[in-house]
Amino acid sequence: MIQTDIIIVGAGPTGLFAVFEAGLLKLKCHLIDALPQPGGQCSELYPKKPIYDIPGFPEVLAGELVDNLIKQIAPFKPGFTLAERAETIEKLNDGNFLITTNKGTKHKAPVVAIAGGLGSFEPRKPELEDIEKFEEKGVYYMIKNPEDYRGKQVLIAGGGDAALDWAIHLSDMAKKVTLVHRRNEFRGALDSVEKVKEYKKQGKIVLITPAEVIKLNGNGNLESLVLQKQGENNTEETIKVDAFIPLFGLSPKLGPIAKWGFEIEKGAIKVHNSLDYQTNIPGVFAIGDVNTYPGKLKLILCGFHEATLMVQSAYQIINPGKRNILKYTTVSGVNGFDGSKKESPKTVVSKIE
Amino acid sequence: MIQTDIIIVGAGPTGLFAVFEAGLLKLKCHLIDALPQPGGQCSELYPKKPIYDIPGFPEVLAGELVDNLIKQIAPFKPGFTLAERAETIEKLNDGNFLITTNKGTKHKAPVVAIAGGLGSFEPRKPELEDIEKFEEKGVYYMIKNPEDYRGKQVLIAGGGDAALDWAIHLSDMAKKVTLVHRRNEFRGALDSVEKVKEYKKQGKIVLITPAEVIKLNGNGNLESLVLQKQGENNTEETIKVDAFIPLFGLSPKLGPIAKWGFEIEKGAIKVHNSLDYQTNIPGVFAIGDVNTYPGKLKLILCGFHEATLMVQSAYQIINPGKRNILKYTTVSGVNGFDGSKKESPKTVVSKIE
Repeated sequence: MIQTDIIIVGAGPTGLFAVFEAGLLKLKCHLIDALPQPGGQCSELYPKKPIYDIPGFPEVLAGELVDNLIKQIAPFKPGFTLAERAETIEKLNDGNFLITTNKGTKHKAPVVAIAGGLGSFEPRKPELEDIEKFEEKGVYYMIKNPEDYRGKQVLIAGGGDAALDWAIHLSDMAKKVTLVHRRNEFRGALDSVEKVKEYKKQGKIVLITPAEVIKLNGNGNLESLVLQKQGENNTEETIKVDAFIPLFGLSPKLGPIAKWGFEIEKGAIKVHNSLDYQTNIPGVFAIGDVNTYPGKLKLILCGFHEATLMVQSAYQIINPGKRNILKYTTVSGVNGFDGSKKESPKTVVSKIE
Repeated sequence: MIQTDIIIVGAGPTGLFAVFEAGLLKLKCHLIDALPQPGGQCSELYPKKPIYDIPGFPEVLAGELVDNLIKQIAPFKPGFTLAERAETIEKLNDGNFLITTNKGTKHKAPVVAIAGGLGSFEPRKPELEDIEKFEEKGVYYMIKNPEDYRGKQVLIAGGGDAALDWAIHLSDMAKKVTLVHRRNEFRGALDSVEKVKEYKKQGKIVLITPAEVIKLNGNGNLESLVLQKQGENNTEETIKVDAFIPLFGLSPKLGPIAKWGFEIEKGAIKVHNSLDYQTNIPGVFAIGDVNTYPGKLKLILCGFHEATLMVQSAYQIINPGKRNILKYTTVSGVNGFDGSKKESPKTVVSKIE
């Protein structure tokens, strides 16, 4: 059982920054995310793309922004439950909320902040008979740890950046990497496309296009698959594989959260106005892209503001009757839970002789 | 007459960032500020102090943040009226607002955003008979252009960073710099104190403490002043000066804005809830530290959010009936009014052979 002050569901930029603002109020946070790394969309969908509308950054790569946020919140030692989806919420008799993931991990806290963005990103699955049977037994929709594929025969399907980049990455450790796409044309960053061309020439990646996987074979674990090469004859080929990784993109789904009893409007959680972004369940807040209110804009910078206001009310719930006076970091510095202290260089009072 | 889409009163971080968000909606902005440079408190009061709670910056100097914002908004070519205080507002028959400064500069726009922070910073003045008579004729409370003091005999009074730093800076160009303080102890950054010590030894700065200016003399322009050296005898000395610069700090005053007809609560302008931070005067918004609403926090990051929501309503006022669809800079890039274009590296669609 993980016990904390605020459980944050979603480790995107908004959820991460909430840790910082909570930390300033001496509140501890634990984040849960379905993706294997923090950063949400910024890390998963466009880590190498620039964002131009983060205040104070004329340009910042999405991945850099996440790295900066992780560095900024480090003094407040957040906990993480990654690659698990928050599945159920329960209000306990002691006033705490209990959140359980799809893997059964349990988290307890008096305050919950939903920072779930557009929802949890679910992989688009190919329509193949029995594919569910082989999931996690040779079929993987997400690569959590590349080392799992060392020495393996891997077949990646897809035509976008994820397929290109993982084919490149795994070619260094896998026994064999085959990249399959139903079109001849790939769509991705120029340097990824160039690299795959080069690796194909070198024989590091086997490229088969246009082609589609049409059947999976195996007894318990996946052992081989049948590939149909499109063309005049639609020839079929059976290929031995240890892992089939279809990377057809992720589509966000509000998922289990939709059944937690919130007022839902246009696929988002309705919250009170600017006061603190509390939902209809007292003690549960919704911040960032997952919420909606009059005038709502789904922008990262708005999530930062919402997270900041939210933790003020969280403080009141956790410390009833205690008054919190807003302190400025420039004046008061940042006191980490790890004993670290950041502060402005001290002013000296000195006689000049 | 300056004509624009949005007149922004106050060029602190919130006002500056409003230019960016307005620019994304193709709206032009003009900023008015009583201080001689943009950045508000960040530039004037603590440019060298670190801020720790700007999202994405584990640490950023206030002056750096302002520099970054100026760089970020540059493509949208904001206009500036600096070192002038917005004095009056008038609603014209054509629907525009007319804002006139204390120097008589006139600005016209259909939308006004008050981003005045804690108010306009007014210098604390020494209590000296006839000091008003010599203002701008030898008495200066703010240094707008250091070059104005080249070859002059300057006397600075004060014991803080401003007095120390300007004494150091002007000693390179003035004929003579005298620094006077009513105590022996100065209060400032260690390196400023050390530098003044060094310059005193080298004879670049004449230091007189504890002492106070008690009288100003001159016929039209300031010609000399009388200094009282505190001690057993309280001896007096007349010193010839071209410029007397008392740097006793700035204190923020809401100033003329307080009389523009807004609902004022605790020295701040009351605005609608989170919707768009509009004041009781339609078409006039208040953003950043100058406003108040339930849950308000006077933080820079909140000002960024408020500025962003505000410009959406400004767009509706300026383009009635036209629908604005939120675009993401990562997808759509930034199209500057100067013809510049920032955009994410293009995705290629390519056959790999």
